[in-house]
Amino acid sequence: MGRLAAEPEFQLHTNRIEALSDGVFAIVMILLILEVHVPETSHGSLAAGLRDLWLKFLCYVIGFVTLGVYWVAHHLHFYTIKRADRGLLWINIIFLMCVGLVPFSTALLGEHYTDRAASVFFAANMILIGLTLYWHWAYATAGRRLVGDGTPLPLVAKVKQVILIGPAVYAAAILLAFVSPLISLALFALVNALYIIPGGIHLHLKHQPE
Amino acid sequence: MGRLAAEPEFQLHTNRIEALSDGVFAIVMILLILEVHVPETSHGSLAAGLRDLWLKFLCYVIGFVTLGVYWVAHHLHFYTIKRADRGLLWINIIFLMCVGLVPFSTALLGEHYTDRAASVFFAANMILIGLTLYWHWAYATAGRRLVGDGTPLPLVAKVKQVILIGPAVYAAAILLAFVSPLISLALFALVNALYIIPGGIHLHLKHQPE
Amino acid sequence: MGRLAAEPEFQLHTNRIEALSDGVFAIVMILLILEVHVPETSHGSLAAGLRDLWLKFLCYVIGFVTLGVYWVAHHLHFYTIKRADRGLLWINIIFLMCVGLVPFSTALLGEHYTDRAASVFFAANMILIGLTLYWHWAYATAGRRLVGDGTPLPLVAKVKQVILIGPAVYAAAILLAFVSPLISLALFALVNALYIIPGGIHLHLKHQPE
Amino acid sequence: MGRLAAEPEFQLHTNRIEALSDGVFAIVMILLILEVHVPETSHGSLAAGLRDLWLKFLCYVIGFVTLGVYWVAHHLHFYTIKRADRGLLWINIIFLMCVGLVPFSTALLGEHYTDRAASVFFAANMILIGLTLYWHWAYATAGRRLVGDGTPLPLVAKVKQVILIGPAVYAAAILLAFVSPLISLALFALVNALYIIPGGIHLHLKHQPE
Repeated sequence: MGRLAAEPEFQLHTNRIEALSDGVFAIVMILLILEVHVPETSHGSLAAGLRDLWLKFLCYVIGFVTLGVYWVAHHLHFYTIKRADRGLLWINIIFLMCVGLVPFSTALLGEHYTDRAASVFFAANMILIGLTLYWHWAYATAGRRLVGDGTPLPLVAKVKQVILIGPAVYAAAILLAFVSPLISLALFALVNALYIIPGGIHLHLKHQPE
Repeated sequence: MGRLAAEPEFQLHTNRIEALSDGVFAIVMILLILEVHVPETSHGSLAAGLRDLWLKFLCYVIGFVTLGVYWVAHHLHFYTIKRADRGLLWINIIFLMCVGLVPFSTALLGEHYTDRAASVFFAANMILIGLTLYWHWAYATAGRRLVGDGTPLPLVAKVKQVILIGPAVYAAAILLAFVSPLISLALFALVNALYIIPGGIHLHLKHQPE
Repeated sequence: MGRLAAEPEFQLHTNRIEALSDGVFAIVMILLILEVHVPETSHGSLAAGLRDLWLKFLCYVIGFVTLGVYWVAHHLHFYTIKRADRGLLWINIIFLMCVGLVPFSTALLGEHYTDRAASVFFAANMILIGLTLYWHWAYATAGRRLVGDGTPLPLVAKVKQVILIGPAVYAAAILLAFVSPLISLALFALVNALYIIPGGIHLHLKHQPE
Repeated sequence: MGRLAAEPEFQLHTNRIEALSDGVFAIVMILLILEVHVPETSHGSLAAGLRDLWLKFLCYVIGFVTLGVYWVAHHLHFYTIKRADRGLLWINIIFLMCVGLVPFSTALLGEHYTDRAASVFFAANMILIGLTLYWHWAYATAGRRLVGDGTPLPLVAKVKQVILIGPAVYAAAILLAFVSPLISLALFALVNALYIIPGGIHLHLKHQPE
């Protein structure tokens, strides 16, 4: 904040961006469960009805974990991003608008997982989220606009690479959906594993001063 | 807070107003997606069903961005407003009550966009939000009631002007809805652009001491 | 916190109680709008359909403002309550459980406002909220358990009186519902005005040291 | 934070984990009320319709209090856990994913409380929550990974024991569901009482330095 005089723009804190984002993620994660309905038992036992919901539960897990990946990434960004400006507020709102589509995309996948259009829509949603996340990071770090003076440039470049893995895998999933939508589904699970397993962003973040 | 002795009223912090407001905005933004339903495929392909949802997605974007404009404005207010009192708590609750109507107004617009009544209702909702936001700012800054002693009066006046652009454009949209509801729709998109493009409030906020 | 050695119990901060409560209030406030549905136009004009919703909008306003009264009261409590313990956590959870019934009570009132049972249920819900709020305050202030050493006892007593106005008016509303449910409705609006108009709790809070 | 040089991993703050968790708990608690519908009065009086909802209200209370138990436990953990790492972020997300199932499990129990499958599902959900909570605590305290250097080992061991009471009782409830689902229901209420009544975790937390 001591650099305000030298800055051409009014600088904002990041706390309310983070509060709005945490609220949006919490709601979107929990909306996923609304797609799972208590089974009717007029045509069979309740136990059988619950077993038939396995695909709905799988989609709940995929949706929740996918949102977890983006929440963790968004959270880690704000260890490097120290201030905000009007541009970052709006990039963040667009990011949240794409995140807000996830309950729809996940429900679509759960009801039509054998249909190529559902896989393509889900993957396109994820590519949009990944690209706005990339934009968020690139905007904040360009010329060290909203990060500390000591932020290492190799960290900035490495995080960009790591973010782009997601959109690349989802683009591949779109192509493979034309072979079989089930191959896409497998990729949707795999890409999360790539981000959860330690490494990538996290290994590099530890090098930066706090 | 050192001015408490000279103040006739007990002064409150602003943090819980901001927390409640961030929560309300997060929920309202995400409620918009509940208006978009996974298409049935009994009467055609899923891809066609998704294409037919384009208007629903457009309304989602308009609603989300409109809420973003108000969230950004509310957020920026609290860089100038340093304390709260009972009056501000209640003006804020009334503001949130108007914001809470947005999912209804947006769904109404999405289902009946060719009907003048829907455009008028949506615009009236936005005028109510704009006027309570104006009230919020005017109340807090009157006699520098809840702002710092150094808050420049030209900033106070300029922010008032900028806030009133919204209700003015929406009032025009109501009149033009009697010519054609589609002209109103175009204005609903245009007015957001006026606030997102840098300038206005933001250019002036940078002049104030933090 | 310097009194920990003299305290028989581990003391907690109040920030997460406040965060959970703000989240619950934000959600409950916004759930109220889900009771207002976009009108069908198969049997008449949209404008007429919107006019027929006036009672739903009135219930939205009554519900929102009533929740606002409790949120403001809860917020003001935490200017006096400085720490928490396990007992306060649980009283707060029970308070939030009663607050969580408001969307149901309000929807009930909106659909059956001429039925005595709806008025009685709504009033009973409000009495429960008022009594748990009283319990919350009485527990925290008993022997200055969770408040500052300098908290004036007249403030403690006065806040208790003010909190009990609500349950008293709602109890009267239950009795009057047996004359006419519409008299109860008028009381539901009146009691909010008693709390919003400056005075009561607020006038006394200004006397306490911060 | 002064130990960062000696730590092999980048350390995160816990505030956003807590914010996301508070948001998730607030939403999940309030989703429970959506299972209670305003009664139709075409087949009888409204008062009778409300009385018939007693089981729905009981499930609301059981669900809310059960979530309260886990929220209190999660809250208390973070008096001991001082920092986070990527592993803790993910264990917490998995914990929240299990918590997010509670509205479904509770609705299932409310609609099919005489069916063994509903009791088993509810209990299995609670066992999952309890075990991830155990994992959360064990991960954070192993080798004092994310807790203060002065955290007493007897506290660590005692909290583990207390957490495991829940899964043990719920496992017993599963076995007893094969005798009668109503015995399970009684256990679901009893286990909450075990955690709410002062003692257990709380008595031990007071021994730790803050």
